[in-house]
Amino acid sequence: MQFELTTDYLDTLRSAIEDRNDVYLNEQLNEHYAADIAEIFDKLSFEEAKYLYDLMPEESTADVLLELDEDMREQLLASLSTKEIAEQLDNMDSDDAADVINELPEEIQDEVLSQLEDIEQASDIADLLNYEEGTAGSLMAKELVSVYAHETVSACIEEIRQQTDNVDVMYAVYVVDEKERLIGMLSLKKLVISPPSALIQDIFDSEIISVKTHTDTGEISDIMRKYDLVVLPVVDTFGRLVGRITIDDVVDVIREEAEKDIQRMSGISDDVDSSDKIWRLSRARIPWLLVGMCGGIIGSRIISSYEGQIQIHPEMAFFIPLIGAMGGNVGVQSSAIIVQGLANNTLKDEKLVPKLMKELGVGLINGLICSSLIFGYNILISDSFQLASVVSIALITVILFASFLGTFVPLTLYRFKINPALATGPFVTTLNDILGITIYFLVGRMLYNAV
Amino acid sequence: MQFELTTDYLDTLRSAIEDRNDVYLNEQLNEHYAADIAEIFDKLSFEEAKYLYDLMPEESTADVLLELDEDMREQLLASLSTKEIAEQLDNMDSDDAADVINELPEEIQDEVLSQLEDIEQASDIADLLNYEEGTAGSLMAKELVSVYAHETVSACIEEIRQQTDNVDVMYAVYVVDEKERLIGMLSLKKLVISPPSALIQDIFDSEIISVKTHTDTGEISDIMRKYDLVVLPVVDTFGRLVGRITIDDVVDVIREEAEKDIQRMSGISDDVDSSDKIWRLSRARIPWLLVGMCGGIIGSRIISSYEGQIQIHPEMAFFIPLIGAMGGNVGVQSSAIIVQGLANNTLKDEKLVPKLMKELGVGLINGLICSSLIFGYNILISDSFQLASVVSIALITVILFASFLGTFVPLTLYRFKINPALATGPFVTTLNDILGITIYFLVGRMLYNAV
Repeated sequence: MQFELTTDYLDTLRSAIEDRNDVYLNEQLNEHYAADIAEIFDKLSFEEAKYLYDLMPEESTADVLLELDEDMREQLLASLSTKEIAEQLDNMDSDDAADVINELPEEIQDEVLSQLEDIEQASDIADLLNYEEGTAGSLMAKELVSVYAHETVSACIEEIRQQTDNVDVMYAVYVVDEKERLIGMLSLKKLVISPPSALIQDIFDSEIISVKTHTDTGEISDIMRKYDLVVLPVVDTFGRLVGRITIDDVVDVIREEAEKDIQRMSGISDDVDSSDKIWRLSRARIPWLLVGMCGGIIGSRIISSYEGQIQIHPEMAFFIPLIGAMGGNVGVQSSAIIVQGLANNTLKDEKLVPKLMKELGVGLINGLICSSLIFGYNILISDSFQLASVVSIALITVILFASFLGTFVPLTLYRFKINPALATGPFVTTLNDILGITIYFLVGRMLYNAV
Repeated sequence: MQFELTTDYLDTLRSAIEDRNDVYLNEQLNEHYAADIAEIFDKLSFEEAKYLYDLMPEESTADVLLELDEDMREQLLASLSTKEIAEQLDNMDSDDAADVINELPEEIQDEVLSQLEDIEQASDIADLLNYEEGTAGSLMAKELVSVYAHETVSACIEEIRQQTDNVDVMYAVYVVDEKERLIGMLSLKKLVISPPSALIQDIFDSEIISVKTHTDTGEISDIMRKYDLVVLPVVDTFGRLVGRITIDDVVDVIREEAEKDIQRMSGISDDVDSSDKIWRLSRARIPWLLVGMCGGIIGSRIISSYEGQIQIHPEMAFFIPLIGAMGGNVGVQSSAIIVQGLANNTLKDEKLVPKLMKELGVGLINGLICSSLIFGYNILISDSFQLASVVSIALITVILFASFLGTFVPLTLYRFKINPALATGPFVTTLNDILGITIYFLVGRMLYNAV
């Protein structure tokens, strides 16, 4: 049922391209959806993809272009004249066309726009280019069907018939007043089952959720998810209907947000993927490595101030990694829970103190379990009661501190409007590493000197 | 425009509940969407929520129930008789009703089912309960509109009119052959603009993507995302149309998957959120902490075997945390990129060796940068050329090994059909910690003995 791209199939295609077997290739291109053809293109060399691209009928290439990886799309577009690019844009939804324009080198953007045949499309795209990245304006498409409340069902159906070329998939008809302000919507189902002479104002649904052009994409995905919406109208500051956002664009936003969170947690500061160049991958990773290194250097300074103690009690050094690692692990666990709660809006209005108490409770339970186990281990192995006490007391203290920091840091970042996910990764780990070592040696000095 | 729940508003509601001010409360309940009312309920005590619930007209409560947090829903359902629960289920889509039944105590499930008034709904729910969690069958709803290819547009519209009570939101009409096998679809737009006498077989679209009842939810979300679908029909092994999955359910799946990945990366082994009980939160976190502790113990054994060396060169101990932390950081960075590539399907067919070479390249660049910096630092601070060499050589070796493991481990897990995200978290960190210390002391012994 679903297309699965195999290496065998790719090899067959490659040799067909080499043999210029256009009959077979055309047959294959006709058989697949645009998304599948794009998947094939992404695995081919540019020359092979370009050969297939030139074989395709003009009306199908736009969809394939949109589904390609950015690199391949860039190469294909670079091989086209501005006139040819304009022809592709004419066949796209306005929001997709605006995205493609944005990817083009700046010096040819205006030239491409001026060559669009569809004047309305050109003005829609130019309009969309004005909206800031990450807002409703940058996600929305201008294609939609709207009717006035005083019109009839049959007039509305006529309107749909006329706009049928522009709007690919339709979910609803928007109802506006005489000043073009959005006042409600009419589902296609309602339209289908209503008599042709019925007036829109008698059958439309005035309960409608909309967003402003400047609403940010995170809020949009929250709204669409909360109210289970498939399409969301966008209005300007005067309440006039200017566009609509569909769920497929928002699904991409949700995935990208999740990916960014995972990258932040992993200490990767830029949006990269595994197909990027080595140099770009290195650059995205070095900042947090340097943060980690500074943490390590601070750690070395702290330990070096206990040099004498290590010479007398070298066994203190044995448990440095354990203490550091446990602090880091607990900190990441605590902050991940908090960051997730913030992202889900389940934590927004809750008070800081009960949250902290709860995390400390969890820390206390797990800290007691871990430190009893390590106490038992140390008594068995080393029969040094001192060392066993130092490690266990330090461990439970570190776990409690790490629980505290893991809760406090993301909540505080959030209050200052900094992305709390930043706190889940190397930052909290490094902080806890340093803190852990300090506590360990402090406890060590106290106990060894006391006995 | 969008509802924002403030503490002030909650306080007003609470005192209105206390004063039994039903006029005001009814007004408020009428004004909000089900999702907003559910948000309010979740913040109230059970008694307060129950009071509001009883005020609501019967036809609106089902939607609110569905949007509630699991805990509050459980409490509200527990306060209802089986007859009352059955009434709620009658007002839900079959997939939602099946989910609610699944949450009920097993001993009352059959009783509730037998009390449903709508016999068809009862049999649909009973049918849905048979499908395994995580498959298309468990996500799909039975409500859909299907027509035979030989029917006319007007017959189809009549069919929609009849089913209008059952199907909340409609996106398309499915076309089946005389054996109920899915052969295509008809968009509502096409239906609206076609003449009433047109035959479905002349206007329907036979290119249709569907899944089987046993297709897993991950694949479903991939398919819907790839082909930008809002609704996806589900067929049985004979190709007969049995249900449909809508994008809103899949959006939830996508978010849940992302959350689970983040939890796995953070060393939380169970699906928990911050509102869970302390004991449950502790239990979800202890397993990976114990893994980390075992790693720490192994680390302590390794260091203890170099006890003599530490006594002579206590400065070796200073950089234990730095080496461990850097190995962990690099390992997590590498594995996060690989896990993400696997989740996106961009890596599926690629070869292991070029991937490894690339990661090693990145590791080499960043390793050289970091180890040069730390070499400079050590020369400046300690003027011990030996220590500076040991730390730098160990650091670059550790970074290269960590890059290797961070790539190799998730790809290997994936090959053996184990979730590669497991490798991104504490597992890789612990492994790299141990490896890092071993390398560090090996290099230390070699260099100190050599000079």
